Amino acid sequence: MRRFLLLAAAGAALSFAAAAHADPVRATAEGLRDKALAGSGAWEIVESLTTEIGGRPTGSPAMERAKDWGVAKLKALGFENVHVEPFVKQNAWLRGPESASVTLPYPHKLSILGLGNSVATPAAGIEAEIVVFDSLNDMLAAPAGSLSGKIAVVNQPMVRTQTGEGYGAAVRARSGASEAARRGAVAYLTRSISTGDSNQPHTGAMQYADGVAKIPTAALGVPDADLLARLYKRGKPVKVKLNLASTVIAQAPAWNIVGEIKGREKPDEVIVIGGHLDSWDPAEGAIDDGAGVAITTAAAKLIGDLPQRPRRTIRVVMWGSEETGGAGEAYAEAHKNEVAKMVLAGESDLGGGRLFKVDLPKGAAADPAMAALPSILAPLKIVVTREAARFAGSDVEGLEALGVPVASLYNDASHYFDLHHSADDTLDKVDRGDLDQNVAAWAALLYLAAESDVDFRNPRAAAKK
Amino acid sequence: MRRFLLLAAAGAALSFAAAAHADPVRATAEGLRDKALAGSGAWEIVESLTTEIGGRPTGSPAMERAKDWGVAKLKALGFENVHVEPFVKQNAWLRGPESASVTLPYPHKLSILGLGNSVATPAAGIEAEIVVFDSLNDMLAAPAGSLSGKIAVVNQPMVRTQTGEGYGAAVRARSGASEAARRGAVAYLTRSISTGDSNQPHTGAMQYADGVAKIPTAALGVPDADLLARLYKRGKPVKVKLNLASTVIAQAPAWNIVGEIKGREKPDEVIVIGGHLDSWDPAEGAIDDGAGVAITTAAAKLIGDLPQRPRRTIRVVMWGSEETGGAGEAYAEAHKNEVAKMVLAGESDLGGGRLFKVDLPKGAAADPAMAALPSILAPLKIVVTREAARFAGSDVEGLEALGVPVASLYNDASHYFDLHHSADDTLDKVDRGDLDQNVAAWAALLYLAAESDVDFRNPRAAAKK
Repeated sequence: MRRFLLLAAAGAALSFAAAAHADPVRATAEGLRDKALAGSGAWEIVESLTTEIGGRPTGSPAMERAKDWGVAKLKALGFENVHVEPFVKQNAWLRGPESASVTLPYPHKLSILGLGNSVATPAAGIEAEIVVFDSLNDMLAAPAGSLSGKIAVVNQPMVRTQTGEGYGAAVRARSGASEAARRGAVAYLTRSISTGDSNQPHTGAMQYADGVAKIPTAALGVPDADLLARLYKRGKPVKVKLNLASTVIAQAPAWNIVGEIKGREKPDEVIVIGGHLDSWDPAEGAIDDGAGVAITTAAAKLIGDLPQRPRRTIRVVMWGSEETGGAGEAYAEAHKNEVAKMVLAGESDLGGGRLFKVDLPKGAAADPAMAALPSILAPLKIVVTREAARFAGSDVEGLEALGVPVASLYNDASHYFDLHHSADDTLDKVDRGDLDQNVAAWAALLYLAAESDVDFRNPRAAAKK
Repeated sequence: MRRFLLLAAAGAALSFAAAAHADPVRATAEGLRDKALAGSGAWEIVESLTTEIGGRPTGSPAMERAKDWGVAKLKALGFENVHVEPFVKQNAWLRGPESASVTLPYPHKLSILGLGNSVATPAAGIEAEIVVFDSLNDMLAAPAGSLSGKIAVVNQPMVRTQTGEGYGAAVRARSGASEAARRGAVAYLTRSISTGDSNQPHTGAMQYADGVAKIPTAALGVPDADLLARLYKRGKPVKVKLNLASTVIAQAPAWNIVGEIKGREKPDEVIVIGGHLDSWDPAEGAIDDGAGVAITTAAAKLIGDLPQRPRRTIRVVMWGSEETGGAGEAYAEAHKNEVAKMVLAGESDLGGGRLFKVDLPKGAAADPAMAALPSILAPLKIVVTREAARFAGSDVEGLEALGVPVASLYNDASHYFDLHHSADDTLDKVDRGDLDQNVAAWAALLYLAAESDVDFRNPRAAAKK
């Protein structure tokens, strides 16, 4: 099926090219799109990152190697002004040895991953009876003291949606530790925040509430969470033993890596895009977010390969601490005096699935500079909406708060959360044709914005007919 | 989709029932089919086994609990002559602590499972450069001594097919250790014998060749095998460290568990069916072979619930050592004087996927006693072929070799090998509606065979029209 789609896209590319538009800006945007579909180079970037660096949590030696990789890759691809912007990551959390088992009614090894920021257990571990809730709300309804001495388990499933909006609802359960502790629990386990049915656990960052005892917390593989629920419903005591270790680096070095395609006329007017270079540790960080790094880098590189640069600058940032936070904040702080010149910002951080929708800043879809975009993206099966983009990625939230307009490009995330933050986030899950479709759309959009003088803060009304 | 199929089947069941046939044997077989579709009880059996016992390798305490579970379950379901047939399992292999990591060019934890019968590594582990082959044949083409001091890795994919026949071709790579050792290797790793793309490794039994040094051997998660291949193709040294521990019980107690629906007229004429009760250890043994145990047990129980018993006996066996061998051999040896009275044998051991095909003993599809079978199974979307059944399951191979006729019921195994022998072989992968379809077919077939006097060794020709 994917092969078929790729062939279909390639076939379509030929016909688009034949119909190249008389408007030279539109024709160039269409040419970028079609070149991307014929092989954007994005897959080669994510292959290089996942093979040569692997998983790369902020604060780890791998992340330092990733930083060097990013600099070398941007230089090799012809970017200008390639540099590193260092910042300090507070309390970088690195996983140590971990294990968990059912010990009663019979021994069973559980598939777990400690959650980012979790405190460790004592070296001897914690062994206690479990109490299993079908949802976080069920646990919240339990009275104070009712979990005294127990390990609380929340087995709340996540809903599969195209936009991944099931994640927002489900992910609250990842930070249930403090609410469990308020009720007396000695540890907290959550069903992985996952739409999949694998026993691979999915990690992710959690946060403790202030003023509550910090208890160790981990994610269970989905079938193991179901098993605990089934055992618990038998009505006899079920015991689990948990061992978690971790290291926290109070002040870890971290870096945002930057490269630019300098604008030929207005180089100080900047479009800021990128993905995040850090990843979780259990796998290769291929879909989260090697794909986003590769898509945005490849899109900017295609524009850099044009006979002449667009009028404005396109800046690619590989943010260096998204998973546990800090990179976007550091970037916004470092560039707060530049934001008035930032034309647009965006991030690719929902995997490498095909794009199906683009939201522009409020009113911008009607601006004459963007008028061709729906037609350019239609053959890619992407709709340009009239909705104002709101969230455009964690790493550009800080810029958005400072008034930088953002664009949101929506990946089909139907299967993203099957893999996200688990040992299955590996290169084989990234499809070349899907990446190329992403690059085609990003390149066309970026080019229209960079070659025009559109003001996304004050877009013009549509031209009168 | 599955929900839709289930509803469709339930709706169909009503209409079959309304069309109950004038032939009372056929009508009873159709009634069994329709009762199974409305809820066969098979799911409850596999739920009980996977929840109350969990994974159960032969030689483990879990297998002893499983034996008691089997006896209690057969008695509770109304079987007669419920008993245990003990035998001795030679060299039962039980997993110890295991780990593997890439150590060069950068540290990366590998997802592995030791293969059944593998020798352990020294306690300090084995660390060596790897040599990666894309197929077992590529490794076999390597000259003697060419792997001296190396860890050999075979990254051969498995082909997905409906019948699971890709397994036979791929599984040879699981026993590559001796051929690697002949060429000087100090350890052998194989890509998991899997059609999936999860990093969950898939274990399974391997065999060493006589007269060759036994080297430790394990299966890699599919993406990790791909990663090793990509790293190796970079052309720089790649090192892996492997630690495997295991226990071997020279003479382990083992059991086949038996229950019967005694025939009302010819109780000594026996149809022998079942699944295997043992499983691999990483998960719950739900599809392999909790499903088969549940399907065959539920089918026989439905027949036992009829107002009168069929003429011949239906015997359910829960074989107690399929994964590492021994149960079928022990059963055939213990019953060698009874085989002349065994009417038919069969095993359900390819998961709980829908059946799509039945092969009977040679010529039996034309026997008047079986003439109604194609019509009875057609609404279940199962075809009865004129092919002679050959293989009908590892545990009945011994009986087949002694001349017992066998029937093969083919599950759709398209996704079976995504899960098989891995930590993902869990209850959630078993679909109630699919199990009920299996039970419907087994019950109808068993009833026709048990109520008739068909001789599967010498079937009659089709009645002249």
